[in-house]
Amino acid sequence: MQDEIFSIMARNGRARYGILRLPHGEVETPVFMPVATKGTVKTVPGWELEKLGVSMIISNSLHLYFRPGLDVIGKHGGIHNFMGFKRPIFTDSGGFQILKEHFLIGVRENGIYFRSPSDGVKVLLTPGMSAEIQDSIGSDIAMALDYCIPYGKSKRSVEKAVELTTRWAREFREKRRGIAFGIVQGGVYPELREKSASQITSIDFEGFAVGGLSIGEPRSLMYEILEMSLPLLPDGKPRYFMGLGSPLDVLRGVMLGIDIFDSVFPTRNARHGIAFTSEGPLDIRKSRYRDQMIPLDDGCDCPACRNYTRAYLHHLMKENELLGLYLLTVHNIRFMMRFMERIRESIKRNTLDDLYNETMEIFSRKNV
Amino acid sequence: MQDEIFSIMARNGRARYGILRLPHGEVETPVFMPVATKGTVKTVPGWELEKLGVSMIISNSLHLYFRPGLDVIGKHGGIHNFMGFKRPIFTDSGGFQILKEHFLIGVRENGIYFRSPSDGVKVLLTPGMSAEIQDSIGSDIAMALDYCIPYGKSKRSVEKAVELTTRWAREFREKRRGIAFGIVQGGVYPELREKSASQITSIDFEGFAVGGLSIGEPRSLMYEILEMSLPLLPDGKPRYFMGLGSPLDVLRGVMLGIDIFDSVFPTRNARHGIAFTSEGPLDIRKSRYRDQMIPLDDGCDCPACRNYTRAYLHHLMKENELLGLYLLTVHNIRFMMRFMERIRESIKRNTLDDLYNETMEIFSRKNV
Repeated sequence: MQDEIFSIMARNGRARYGILRLPHGEVETPVFMPVATKGTVKTVPGWELEKLGVSMIISNSLHLYFRPGLDVIGKHGGIHNFMGFKRPIFTDSGGFQILKEHFLIGVRENGIYFRSPSDGVKVLLTPGMSAEIQDSIGSDIAMALDYCIPYGKSKRSVEKAVELTTRWAREFREKRRGIAFGIVQGGVYPELREKSASQITSIDFEGFAVGGLSIGEPRSLMYEILEMSLPLLPDGKPRYFMGLGSPLDVLRGVMLGIDIFDSVFPTRNARHGIAFTSEGPLDIRKSRYRDQMIPLDDGCDCPACRNYTRAYLHHLMKENELLGLYLLTVHNIRFMMRFMERIRESIKRNTLDDLYNETMEIFSRKNV
Repeated sequence: MQDEIFSIMARNGRARYGILRLPHGEVETPVFMPVATKGTVKTVPGWELEKLGVSMIISNSLHLYFRPGLDVIGKHGGIHNFMGFKRPIFTDSGGFQILKEHFLIGVRENGIYFRSPSDGVKVLLTPGMSAEIQDSIGSDIAMALDYCIPYGKSKRSVEKAVELTTRWAREFREKRRGIAFGIVQGGVYPELREKSASQITSIDFEGFAVGGLSIGEPRSLMYEILEMSLPLLPDGKPRYFMGLGSPLDVLRGVMLGIDIFDSVFPTRNARHGIAFTSEGPLDIRKSRYRDQMIPLDDGCDCPACRNYTRAYLHHLMKENELLGLYLLTVHNIRFMMRFMERIRESIKRNTLDDLYNETMEIFSRKNV
């Protein structure tokens, strides 16, 4: 445990520009983390992430516990060496895998009963065990084990999930040696959000996450709950919204006061041929790009844009060439990094509204 | 057409060390070309190939004709710009696609009738058309359109294929403006090999390939025919054996007097988890590599070996992560480049026999 990992340096409305000081370096916020569930951001080597300006990523401790196993990561002295990324790394607890049928056996009072989808090995993941796993993995920030209940459950069920989440959070905090973030649950019920926030923020975490949103509820409801949840968190600590990754959603989150984001959205879209550009999303497989001689995005400095035309990328994706997945992935990651840089600059200059109007106009378009 | 593109600088037995002077630069031989059938060496960007020391690659003009189409490549000013590889590029004619059922409709007197496997478009590929296609693609060296008859056909059929190959070669040479190599056919019939070699070498090609081998015949028979074929080619011109790519086979080919090789063998093996190492082939998916902290190959300077342990690569391949395919591919390409460098050095020093004994010992092993 360590205090003062976070300093807010500038504000624009509710948005904050800050510095997060972590064992593997400093991170400017608002920050977007690409997702390396199994110890790799799909298709991209660790050294390339650093070149793309990625300052922090998130991996999944439950996945890593099953494969490759803690002994293997331990031999490497932690996940940073294992995957060749030397900047800060978050780990999620596995709580989110409650929503994955192929992982979940069932929730118990003392933890979550999981199976490994690859070989069927079972484990009862307790909060204490999750803390130990994440310590052993060597992540800079660990997420507390929470009970992320699916959208659409009764208020009674969500209340039970809030109670377990709080009990587990205390046990987690006691065991975790490194930095840890607590997670607020409560579904789409404002009074349960209040209850959960009040209980979780009473525990000595270095930061807090809003969990259990962006899991199938209507977008408007998500924003409603998010907006009412944020004032319940301490202003001076970093705030993390789990699983939000479209440029417009990230910007909206920033304007509500979120500091940290993660999502597979940019990388998964890339593998489906959707590139983010300064003119909006672009489906490179469309026939209009067959002979376009310009880069994906004129102002972009990523290796795909510096070296290749839209025509080449179109060809690769039409032919199902793996190189296409890699090039679109590095492009979308670089797009998000440049976008976050613009967000941070806009906060410092108090011009976030202008950026919002511009982004709204561009990203509410259909794929071009 | 251009003369004197090749100089032999040193010999060791029948093996030759030489320099090939091409529009996009000089290439030292013996050389191994990774295969970029559709305008990409699978998983690897063009700029990375250059960093790996790749001095020349081969692409396929029939594939490129169908997709992306000559208009697209033309707009880029040729294949080098299209795929971001600025060193010499060979193109094959499509003659080899005779062996691919999903391509071939049938052989005609005046050319080969093909269909595009992706959209069913049909084309009667004549020698003149193949020459124009390869000129339009902008390859440094074009292969003449030949009739590559499957292994196991009657002597009469092979004789017919030899006749057509010669007729087509003359027509091809007339039309092709850039450098072109002729291809000797003749199946496994020595007298037909002699006939084909005598006819093809009478045409003004800058180099010659031994075609129609390594297509299913027994290895010993392949070597027998190769060995009798080589003295039929002019000593002073470069010699290319199409489709041979295991380290031991390449070395044997060099010792018989071959200067140029290509094969998908190193890259396809990589995608199946087989890495070439100085201790022999290594199947990274085997459980013994689960926690091995050393690189794939201790002496290797490729990005996979400089950054990652066998344990990490094992993890990626077990989890079907695309990054694993990329890392093993760059490793095997780099292995082949270093191996070819050793071959060239050994020729200069007259020590090819030592290298052969060492390679024989290592690569006749089963996968370690």
